[in-house]
Amino acid sequence: MIYDVAIVGGGPAGLSAALYARRAARTALVIEKSRAGGQLGATAAIENYPGVMRESGEALAGRMAEQCAGFGADFAEGCVTEYALRGDVKALRTAEAEFLAKTVIIASGRRPLPLGARGEAEFVGRGISYCATCDGPMFSGLDVYVAGGGDSAVEEAMYLTKFARKVTLVHRRDSLRAARTLQERAFANEKLSFVWDSVIREACGGDVLDGLVIENLKTGAISEVRADDGMMGLFIFIGLLPNTEGLDGLVELDKGHIVTDEEMRTNLAGVFAAGDVRRKPLRQVVTAVADGAIAAMQADRHICGLGDVT
Amino acid sequence: MIYDVAIVGGGPAGLSAALYARRAARTALVIEKSRAGGQLGATAAIENYPGVMRESGEALAGRMAEQCAGFGADFAEGCVTEYALRGDVKALRTAEAEFLAKTVIIASGRRPLPLGARGEAEFVGRGISYCATCDGPMFSGLDVYVAGGGDSAVEEAMYLTKFARKVTLVHRRDSLRAARTLQERAFANEKLSFVWDSVIREACGGDVLDGLVIENLKTGAISEVRADDGMMGLFIFIGLLPNTEGLDGLVELDKGHIVTDEEMRTNLAGVFAAGDVRRKPLRQVVTAVADGAIAAMQADRHICGLGDVT
Repeated sequence: MIYDVAIVGGGPAGLSAALYARRAARTALVIEKSRAGGQLGATAAIENYPGVMRESGEALAGRMAEQCAGFGADFAEGCVTEYALRGDVKALRTAEAEFLAKTVIIASGRRPLPLGARGEAEFVGRGISYCATCDGPMFSGLDVYVAGGGDSAVEEAMYLTKFARKVTLVHRRDSLRAARTLQERAFANEKLSFVWDSVIREACGGDVLDGLVIENLKTGAISEVRADDGMMGLFIFIGLLPNTEGLDGLVELDKGHIVTDEEMRTNLAGVFAAGDVRRKPLRQVVTAVADGAIAAMQADRHICGLGDVT
Repeated sequence: MIYDVAIVGGGPAGLSAALYARRAARTALVIEKSRAGGQLGATAAIENYPGVMRESGEALAGRMAEQCAGFGADFAEGCVTEYALRGDVKALRTAEAEFLAKTVIIASGRRPLPLGARGEAEFVGRGISYCATCDGPMFSGLDVYVAGGGDSAVEEAMYLTKFARKVTLVHRRDSLRAARTLQERAFANEKLSFVWDSVIREACGGDVLDGLVIENLKTGAISEVRADDGMMGLFIFIGLLPNTEGLDGLVELDKGHIVTDEEMRTNLAGVFAAGDVRRKPLRQVVTAVADGAIAAMQADRHICGLGDVT
């Protein structure tokens, strides 16, 4: 069968796109490589999605998927590795199957680069986070560490000083890569301090993160920091990779992110992008679902031959 | 006191802006003229907000407001009629009070122009709607009437043919104002028919809308249509007015809507717009909340003196 709308990625953007496509009476397929929800599914608690009181990301993502299925969206498991996006019928290939569709919405998201510290995976959502906007307020009055030295690490570290008692930025080099003006502000911030030439080797704790093992790369010295209050935070901002494998040379990218206009259109007719994989100012669940809705309505219009929603 | 962020309008965009402002540890005030929720509060059922199963607009809006208040946002009742938006401290005046803030987010929404038919207000949410994307699927297999003759009336009428058994467009003139290509498609649509030179004078029914009284303006003849299935739909698309009174000549407008960039910035520093009042491609709860979040994060950045989030 040829779907009206095929959606790559089952995170908030993809699920919202499927919901809106189905509401417009279009057949819709969501292709997700692991489980519905994307990065949201891995978020311990979400409290900044309007209308939804604090709950686990998994619960919210599960409800989004259920709602989508209720409207008749189809789901397939697989990682799309090959795209044929030119022409009126597009093809998406996974290791197991090929899917055909009149329009494609790429909502494949991003994945954070892990630090590679021992215990890291174990404490995600229990002290370790990759998103200050999402999880910052949970660390009110606590000690927080930040790994990274680029713009986003420094910006997020400053943002975290609003909540944390003290924020310590641990960077592997002896100077920041962040923009100069940003650095000046960071150095002027009394709640923010720096540990240079160092990497976090291990995350420790019981139920929650309460200690870090840090290695100084110049001296080889190993030190350990402990939480005074039974819990601490570690925010890792060493980079995020957009999941755009197989799209290079096909869809216009900017540092790996898909370039769209405000209507989610890429440079290819009938191909849209939504959510974190897109070049955009604020990556949140709330903006991802909006992107998905807009992309689906544009896909509907594309199939009608009507052009813009505007 | 001088608020960090003052928000005009307590619909989904304004409430989301307040939530995000508070999450960024900014003081935030929401000024709403009637009750929190804006147009959402008047929506009978909402089922296209991802993660929220079908429920009343009032319930969803109420939860958004509660969540906002839980994060410490302040609320004031009043209709802002006067704006002083230049300079570092902005002033907003209602009939009763003046509010000061470092940044302003205008999320004042739009209001549908009522048809002026007898019984119209009574059946809103019980057969009468001003939004096909919101309420169209509730009329699957039923007869639906549409009032209006412009682009949006014709587009929405065609959209409704996906669900309705039959859609009848009632227009006060003898030809459509809609774009020619749109008219051609509309005339070719077998499920869509037209009643010319006519206006709907009365909406009838018990619990739900089941009849309409229509007057032919040329002949003066009165006719009545009845629902075969106990219920019918009437969608009114004779225009929507952005609530931008007092902003003309101050903030850049396009047909009354506030012009922003993708970061929700208006032409005035520290002044942002979010939601339906903004010039944008798709007006839905899901895009309104995204706008609000982006505007609040930009307001936070403006106060920091940091410029863009990007």
